[in-house]
Amino acid sequence: MTHEPAYLALAHAMADAAADVIRPHFRKRLAIDTKADASPVTVADRDAEATMRQMIEAQFPDHGIRGEEFGACRTDAKWIWVLDPIDGTKSFVSGSLAFGTQIALVHRGKPVIGLINQPITGERWFGTGSGATLNGEPIHTSGTTALDEAILYTSALEQFDPSRHDRFSALAAKVRFTRFSHDCYAAGLLALGGIDLLVESNVFDYDILPQMPIVQAAGGIVTDWDGRQLGDASRYDTVLMAANEELHRAALKALRPA
Amino acid sequence: MTHEPAYLALAHAMADAAADVIRPHFRKRLAIDTKADASPVTVADRDAEATMRQMIEAQFPDHGIRGEEFGACRTDAKWIWVLDPIDGTKSFVSGSLAFGTQIALVHRGKPVIGLINQPITGERWFGTGSGATLNGEPIHTSGTTALDEAILYTSALEQFDPSRHDRFSALAAKVRFTRFSHDCYAAGLLALGGIDLLVESNVFDYDILPQMPIVQAAGGIVTDWDGRQLGDASRYDTVLMAANEELHRAALKALRPA
Repeated sequence: MTHEPAYLALAHAMADAAADVIRPHFRKRLAIDTKADASPVTVADRDAEATMRQMIEAQFPDHGIRGEEFGACRTDAKWIWVLDPIDGTKSFVSGSLAFGTQIALVHRGKPVIGLINQPITGERWFGTGSGATLNGEPIHTSGTTALDEAILYTSALEQFDPSRHDRFSALAAKVRFTRFSHDCYAAGLLALGGIDLLVESNVFDYDILPQMPIVQAAGGIVTDWDGRQLGDASRYDTVLMAANEELHRAALKALRPA
Repeated sequence: MTHEPAYLALAHAMADAAADVIRPHFRKRLAIDTKADASPVTVADRDAEATMRQMIEAQFPDHGIRGEEFGACRTDAKWIWVLDPIDGTKSFVSGSLAFGTQIALVHRGKPVIGLINQPITGERWFGTGSGATLNGEPIHTSGTTALDEAILYTSALEQFDPSRHDRFSALAAKVRFTRFSHDCYAAGLLALGGIDLLVESNVFDYDILPQMPIVQAAGGIVTDWDGRQLGDASRYDTVLMAANEELHRAALKALRPA
């Protein structure tokens, strides 16, 4: 499958445009609205997604769109853009840098382009079938294979079903240490070899699909907590990303229900 | 009390020198050693502190030093430098930006200069009796007074005595949301008005003293969880930092033992 150069260019142009919208709002006191799922949203989230949607409509009006803030359209299209204008809105409103804009292009159910952009630092992770890069430089996941040397990140335990806390705790008890609250930035750290495991629960397509081409092209493995491939869905109960196959097997074993 | 210009200049020069030591190690695969208190340490932590200590010895050989990696000397001196070369070593080895170099100058038991420097982004928080700045620009804590609008950060629940989890959970249940794993960077966010509450437990002088002049000069309140001033100690059971007096009172009430 070819990812037409125009699609790659649009992904980058949307990330640039979203960054221009988001940057002036950083560390300003924004009104924080609360969505139905209790997650926060600001004018920066909404305006950045609206800007990206307009660019898709203008260039590829037959492509579908699934966005965090404004929902889905043309979901039967062959090419679908999945947009998260600010992944990590809690970090964004806090003034932390642990957030980013996420963009995926999904072709017949499979994410073939993934992009994570940090609008303030200018860090841009990009992944396709032909490789993963950070600001144009190739990146690789770590070679850590032992759980007790592995660094584990997860975004927010309070997002997990309580029934899954035990499985997570069993894994956390076996790793070097666990850290929280980094959202998409943690996927970027996994892809560049800084961390070794990323575990999430109750996340949406726009949270995960943009990360998959980056993590996978960097050498990582992405499944659910039971080792199954993530299909094309709007929501995932569990996600496990590991730096390599051996660590993935060890993490699956630790996550196995008691 | 005057903070002699040479002391202010030395604080900045040490932050610059530490950053030069730390930067080449960022996102490289460093050996991670584990200290007696189970916290990680790398060559970057050690070399950055050694560099700062040499600068103090060269310029003010009668000043005392209390550092995270190489301990204390001349602790009966009138002026004591408190150094944490990398606060947030877990973030640093992960490749996250949520870490910093911390420097305090303590005069007769009171921190009178505080500095937090992020070596990669170049963000530098500075606080004295005459004000708090981020990269030279004055900063102020938020005006958030209602707990249910407040953003709460803490570094790591696993560092708390289990007996304190209930008090923390009682506060966390009342705030807008809680985030983790930002160490000194969270104190910077509190001082610039991005977050509203910072709670820590079982932390050391080099974790907290450099943050106090910044947070206080920006308008914030720093006590323990029972509203007592933090004296000059090498370790603190509990620390509460709030954006303003009204929010501090509300947080103390929520933290009160059941």
